[in-house]
Amino acid sequence: MIPRYSRPEMVAIWEPANKFRIWFEIEAHACDAQSRLGVIPAAAAKTVWEKGDKPYTPERIARIDEIELETKHDVIAFLTELAEHIGEPSRFVHQGMTSSDVLDTCLSVQLSQAADLLLADLDKLLAALKRRAFEAKDMPCIGRSHGIHAEPVTYGLKFARFYAEFARHRDRLLRARMDIATCAISGAVGTFANIDPAVEEYVADKLGLTPEPVSTQVIPRDRHAAFFATLGVIASSIENVAIEIRHAQRTEVREAQEYFAPGQKGSSAMPHKRNPILSENLTGLARTVRMAVVPALENVALWHERDISHSSVERMIGPDATVTLDFALGRLTGLIDKLVLYPQNMRDQLNNFGGIHDAQRVLLYLTQNGVSREDAYKIVQRNAMRVWKSFGIDPDNTDAPAPLDETEKEAAGHENRLFFFLSKDQDLAKALRVEDLKALLEEDSISYHTKRVDTIFKRVFGA
Amino acid sequence: MIPRYSRPEMVAIWEPANKFRIWFEIEAHACDAQSRLGVIPAAAAKTVWEKGDKPYTPERIARIDEIELETKHDVIAFLTELAEHIGEPSRFVHQGMTSSDVLDTCLSVQLSQAADLLLADLDKLLAALKRRAFEAKDMPCIGRSHGIHAEPVTYGLKFARFYAEFARHRDRLLRARMDIATCAISGAVGTFANIDPAVEEYVADKLGLTPEPVSTQVIPRDRHAAFFATLGVIASSIENVAIEIRHAQRTEVREAQEYFAPGQKGSSAMPHKRNPILSENLTGLARTVRMAVVPALENVALWHERDISHSSVERMIGPDATVTLDFALGRLTGLIDKLVLYPQNMRDQLNNFGGIHDAQRVLLYLTQNGVSREDAYKIVQRNAMRVWKSFGIDPDNTDAPAPLDETEKEAAGHENRLFFFLSKDQDLAKALRVEDLKALLEEDSISYHTKRVDTIFKRVFGA
Amino acid sequence: MIPRYSRPEMVAIWEPANKFRIWFEIEAHACDAQSRLGVIPAAAAKTVWEKGDKPYTPERIARIDEIELETKHDVIAFLTELAEHIGEPSRFVHQGMTSSDVLDTCLSVQLSQAADLLLADLDKLLAALKRRAFEAKDMPCIGRSHGIHAEPVTYGLKFARFYAEFARHRDRLLRARMDIATCAISGAVGTFANIDPAVEEYVADKLGLTPEPVSTQVIPRDRHAAFFATLGVIASSIENVAIEIRHAQRTEVREAQEYFAPGQKGSSAMPHKRNPILSENLTGLARTVRMAVVPALENVALWHERDISHSSVERMIGPDATVTLDFALGRLTGLIDKLVLYPQNMRDQLNNFGGIHDAQRVLLYLTQNGVSREDAYKIVQRNAMRVWKSFGIDPDNTDAPAPLDETEKEAAGHENRLFFFLSKDQDLAKALRVEDLKALLEEDSISYHTKRVDTIFKRVFGA
Amino acid sequence: MIPRYSRPEMVAIWEPANKFRIWFEIEAHACDAQSRLGVIPAAAAKTVWEKGDKPYTPERIARIDEIELETKHDVIAFLTELAEHIGEPSRFVHQGMTSSDVLDTCLSVQLSQAADLLLADLDKLLAALKRRAFEAKDMPCIGRSHGIHAEPVTYGLKFARFYAEFARHRDRLLRARMDIATCAISGAVGTFANIDPAVEEYVADKLGLTPEPVSTQVIPRDRHAAFFATLGVIASSIENVAIEIRHAQRTEVREAQEYFAPGQKGSSAMPHKRNPILSENLTGLARTVRMAVVPALENVALWHERDISHSSVERMIGPDATVTLDFALGRLTGLIDKLVLYPQNMRDQLNNFGGIHDAQRVLLYLTQNGVSREDAYKIVQRNAMRVWKSFGIDPDNTDAPAPLDETEKEAAGHENRLFFFLSKDQDLAKALRVEDLKALLEEDSISYHTKRVDTIFKRVFGA
Repeated sequence: MIPRYSRPEMVAIWEPANKFRIWFEIEAHACDAQSRLGVIPAAAAKTVWEKGDKPYTPERIARIDEIELETKHDVIAFLTELAEHIGEPSRFVHQGMTSSDVLDTCLSVQLSQAADLLLADLDKLLAALKRRAFEAKDMPCIGRSHGIHAEPVTYGLKFARFYAEFARHRDRLLRARMDIATCAISGAVGTFANIDPAVEEYVADKLGLTPEPVSTQVIPRDRHAAFFATLGVIASSIENVAIEIRHAQRTEVREAQEYFAPGQKGSSAMPHKRNPILSENLTGLARTVRMAVVPALENVALWHERDISHSSVERMIGPDATVTLDFALGRLTGLIDKLVLYPQNMRDQLNNFGGIHDAQRVLLYLTQNGVSREDAYKIVQRNAMRVWKSFGIDPDNTDAPAPLDETEKEAAGHENRLFFFLSKDQDLAKALRVEDLKALLEEDSISYHTKRVDTIFKRVFGA
Repeated sequence: MIPRYSRPEMVAIWEPANKFRIWFEIEAHACDAQSRLGVIPAAAAKTVWEKGDKPYTPERIARIDEIELETKHDVIAFLTELAEHIGEPSRFVHQGMTSSDVLDTCLSVQLSQAADLLLADLDKLLAALKRRAFEAKDMPCIGRSHGIHAEPVTYGLKFARFYAEFARHRDRLLRARMDIATCAISGAVGTFANIDPAVEEYVADKLGLTPEPVSTQVIPRDRHAAFFATLGVIASSIENVAIEIRHAQRTEVREAQEYFAPGQKGSSAMPHKRNPILSENLTGLARTVRMAVVPALENVALWHERDISHSSVERMIGPDATVTLDFALGRLTGLIDKLVLYPQNMRDQLNNFGGIHDAQRVLLYLTQNGVSREDAYKIVQRNAMRVWKSFGIDPDNTDAPAPLDETEKEAAGHENRLFFFLSKDQDLAKALRVEDLKALLEEDSISYHTKRVDTIFKRVFGA
Repeated sequence: MIPRYSRPEMVAIWEPANKFRIWFEIEAHACDAQSRLGVIPAAAAKTVWEKGDKPYTPERIARIDEIELETKHDVIAFLTELAEHIGEPSRFVHQGMTSSDVLDTCLSVQLSQAADLLLADLDKLLAALKRRAFEAKDMPCIGRSHGIHAEPVTYGLKFARFYAEFARHRDRLLRARMDIATCAISGAVGTFANIDPAVEEYVADKLGLTPEPVSTQVIPRDRHAAFFATLGVIASSIENVAIEIRHAQRTEVREAQEYFAPGQKGSSAMPHKRNPILSENLTGLARTVRMAVVPALENVALWHERDISHSSVERMIGPDATVTLDFALGRLTGLIDKLVLYPQNMRDQLNNFGGIHDAQRVLLYLTQNGVSREDAYKIVQRNAMRVWKSFGIDPDNTDAPAPLDETEKEAAGHENRLFFFLSKDQDLAKALRVEDLKALLEEDSISYHTKRVDTIFKRVFGA
Repeated sequence: MIPRYSRPEMVAIWEPANKFRIWFEIEAHACDAQSRLGVIPAAAAKTVWEKGDKPYTPERIARIDEIELETKHDVIAFLTELAEHIGEPSRFVHQGMTSSDVLDTCLSVQLSQAADLLLADLDKLLAALKRRAFEAKDMPCIGRSHGIHAEPVTYGLKFARFYAEFARHRDRLLRARMDIATCAISGAVGTFANIDPAVEEYVADKLGLTPEPVSTQVIPRDRHAAFFATLGVIASSIENVAIEIRHAQRTEVREAQEYFAPGQKGSSAMPHKRNPILSENLTGLARTVRMAVVPALENVALWHERDISHSSVERMIGPDATVTLDFALGRLTGLIDKLVLYPQNMRDQLNNFGGIHDAQRVLLYLTQNGVSREDAYKIVQRNAMRVWKSFGIDPDNTDAPAPLDETEKEAAGHENRLFFFLSKDQDLAKALRVEDLKALLEEDSISYHTKRVDTIFKRVFGA
């Protein structure tokens, strides 16, 4: 977590003012519960709220720090400062509790708050993806597998699948949130020896948490591991989208481009450049969110009723992973929102290679018209290679014939070169009439390939 | 995945015979669907089942391998061998599909099968943990935080919290299973250009999968990432239990011991040793399951409509992580099932330090009887230190008085030394009567600490 | 480690025959050392070699396995089988040693053997990279940062930097090899209580190892951690090269292509495709080698004088990481060796954008001729944007003027469009004479950019 | 990196003042080099030093930040602020360089500075370990494998092996430092098109770096990966030491204890506790240093002549990993320095189990006196089990005889119970005379086990 990659709302969750506020609420609610049980006087519990319920100003925080320097114990410092406000009844505060009751329940609240911000982030991202998906639903472009032109898709499909991916993440995060939203006020080794379980139940209810069914000194760390693992999975999908955009913005592809504000400078040395720096940055940020996963897994195994090895880890990855993921989701949403699409370039890419993306379509047509799969494959592959070669690709491939000279090129045309070669193939001629082939390829190739887009959208976005 | 850490049922999932069987089922069901759509003749679909529905024997697999050597394409090799059985109608098989449709859907089936075994493993482990939990529900032992004696718990609470932890894992795994149980038969770039989505829906239904709402050439890898991350979280809890047992079996602790079969040899050089090798082994196995998580996360970001970088990773971590986790869960269940408990040693540990685990209890009693928290803390800490020192612990601590001589030791007794010192404390004497303190400490300390165990068990195991 | 990604020589290192052979050598050399020390009879040591020095055939291995089933102890099984060959003197074998002395020293030998193979792999890779570097030393192509055209480089520079990278890896691996090439024959807790350190020194010398200065029951695991971390770093560079090639083979780039054997099939569904499957595969393999790093780091912290948690991890990552890395290095070498380069496509890419890669050169020229840096930047950026826009790129950029109509395009030409716009810029005209600019841009741009290639090659490959 | 786990000297390396200072030096030295080459006037280079060579005060940094807000480019903001100080000659600054030349070379300097601090940290740690090693050289304690008592060692051996481990780390870090101490001033794509390589060589020399033989826009990231991997390996050894101490401080072990300052508070709820919180904390910190390794490996593969995905990662892990490791090494050194040892407790642990640690010694004696290994093992194991059982351990083991009654216990004594049982063993009596056995066991067992300690110390610390 560094300021450059942080947003204030998420940072605030991890700041002392919020932490102490949560501590106060835990203690104050616990007092209420204890007073209901008759363990402490009702008046004391009332005083806690009346005199203690005020913001943790920088002055108060400084005072707590000052006390901690002396006592070397954060919760004791907090309680001592609180006592300065509420006076004598302070001795009823924290009765029967241990520091971990406060610290661990506070962490649950902080992680829940963080999860809520992240859920809101996801909602905004989903809205942006949905909007762009519908905008580009029928915007054809070449689909690629292995980085190689395959068959047409639409740009909307890309947004739609990212939408579906992040919609799954929303579900996962919701469950991960439930996983860490538990409350433990169960004492030094989790036995409730010195405190009634009803206190835990009461505080849990007030804070929107569930009571931890069985704790030790701490809440079990498989919960936190599952939470951070979920953040890591989400981060990986951010990288997934980022890689797509980085490819799209490549000079040779130019199907999309990150929005570049008027006046924004690119490279200091090379004035001509527009770099996809946001998505590159997201690629790196994804790595840094992911790096929380392994230590969170290593944190699960604690000695007996707890050791404190997990604590320093969580002090770092708690803020780091949530702040960075929040920032990254925000940046990604902005990026998607303003992403500049170049439909003409998409079409150009589609048409750049003589209709070669129809190879499978021809193959299928042949097999459906009596040509064996093996023969059909050979015929189509042979002519596809001719197309590539006619565009200067794979010129060393000895299987393919010589490249076209200029006259032939003109005859072959640019966009329908696959047909040009197929129509001259002797083996093919034996199998079917050139007219039929021509008819096939004159049908609109794009709509052949995109005819199910509506169906897919219905699946993803509902009716 | 190595034979030493493998069980046959899980290994079988990843063997060619199972893989080809699944491929066959995908193709055969797809034929049924295509014939219903009128795309291929009903007779052809029927023939596929009639002639193709037989086990993949070693001979058939060898034949497929032979063909693959030639074609260098696994799915084509599979289809060619299948054709040798079903003859001419074979040309209707795989119509409009791509290899990935078969491969990726097959992986979904394999991972679902693996998840089913793992769920069954978890059920067995949960049963063992529950049985041992109730057996040891009221078996007192010292609870430890930081490896230091804290306050009493019962051994049953340890099993109960492991039960709760693995019960959570069962839920997580169930969701992870749903996450990867999807079917994609959507063609080269996921557009269904050459195949009706109804085929996907039909096959999905037959195989117990859900249709993937939007795929590219492949099923999106966030699903697999979430799956392997879940395995990693589960593995971490195996380590958690293993660490507990390794500590319990330490020579100085001896509260529990892995079952050691009659005749089993321990150390070759040191005939006196009984080592917790199973739980040590589980600690290592947990690491190897976890190591699948990061590459699974790295697999999420693919280029455009797919690149194949994820494939080699999954060929390894698919079998490795599931086979090892299955083995580890089985080993852990056996270990828990037969774990030898030493209640007498537990009691000895509890009583070894003069009742010092009642320090907090006394502290609370003092504060509830008018002593300020600060004073009470000082009094109790001071006398607790005397107890430690009287047992030869922390002898350099200058705060504490000289250790007891033999006469004093006898006077002090062994099990109630905290009371001995407290009763001589002048400050304490001012605050309360020794008789009251004595009365407090004569109450059964153990039942004071364990009085909520039933409540906790009810939370964990239900009424 | 799976057969598909394995080579026999590396696999053999991890097979029982090699392992038992190393065990035998350790024991036999130890006997020699013990006999020199007078601990065991010289005749016994002689007999061990005379009767025991024969290959571990499948029959012998089966016999050892059979004994292990009974004793459940691998080293004892090994010694028992050995005793069947050498008879009575067998009781002098293994005197004063523990199993770990044999197992851990054996692992050192196996890792050293593995390192030797990997070093040889690196030598072959370096040779291939060097050959291709010189072949392409003066083959110009566009350099790209952020995936965006920047300034010209040569393809040879790419190979040269990969060469330098793997040359560094060679050094690192050599040191990592030294790190794990130690021998420990120091007894149950490393004290040499029952064996003279001279035995360790003798065996170390015979096996080409260094004696471990201080061991416990085992060799310290920081050594192995450093070793596997080094494999992970090397793997990451494999990914680095693989990514370069995958980009180069993209349909839109086509500067290089993996060799495609005549007759090789590509996609089953799309006969027109040539996919960079080797480098995609290497990308995945890199991830699987890397996944050994974290568990190797986790293995370092052992309890007291050893626990055995590291063992199961090493049984897996030892073979897995070395076998996979060996395979990957071999595959990468083959790929580099046969990589098809397309110099014409490289030139086309270079010239595709009107000489825009000279933007910085013009900028520098302006500042060196009295224009302030700020003004120069603005002038060059403005005209660079005009170039992009004239090629249909970034058409929404409101800063840039309208695109060229056909007449203007003809006037502007294709390859020198940057000059075309610059020469019309009024601000520029004030700063310098168009003739000077023309003179500048008529100099060969490529040789301007590549004039230091020889210097760089000298740095990398020496004089 | 959070204040709680940071030390000011390391933090300062990563602060703006240091960063800008390094930037300034790079630029100023580059000006000198350019003036020697005649590219810029000597007077200009002189002015840069004369007017620019002053500290980066908070005011200057604020000014740079202000400019960056406008230009959104850090290097340009830096140069603009610098120009405000040096005036007109500022136009000669940064000539022919790109931002990456400055940024990447600066990172090399920062990482070198960080490495220097870490090397000094290691020196202090090594000194502490050495001192404690010699102090405890002959302090006997039980050695443990698998957490089970094995045979005696000395506490000094533990420190000695940690010394050897960190001495290896010193070597590794030194090499890692060399790995990242390179300088690149090679322009936008590493071709030196606009700058003479002599500038790079000159600046490198002035900054104590080596010129990068071949760079792209950036220094190759395998260097940084090797660096961070080394930090991860070192961190793992910190965990190794920490685990040893955490075990030593366990209530049941009590062989050592972290120093506890007078007046320091332990648990807030349990006044009797002294927890090994420093070593627990180090366990966690080790995890957080290690988490930098994987993203550093993922950073190696960059697109073409660079993408910027690595940058955000390094902005975080650069400070985080070095600051945390520095803090952890400092904390570890303090911990080792003041660690309280309890030799009497060590001796008690040694003697607690009736001399059972001599089991192997007896075994060896038997085999050397004509008993077969198998028989000797059975005899010794049988009696070792009797010893355990007589101490109430493993009472369910049906192989062992009934536990001793009180009379027998007295007869058996405490410290030499192994002999007691052996001397009654009928099979043993057949093999040797009880007197011989007695003579053997009356020799000092401890000095038998520790006789090689001097040899080992000589190996580790030299003559």
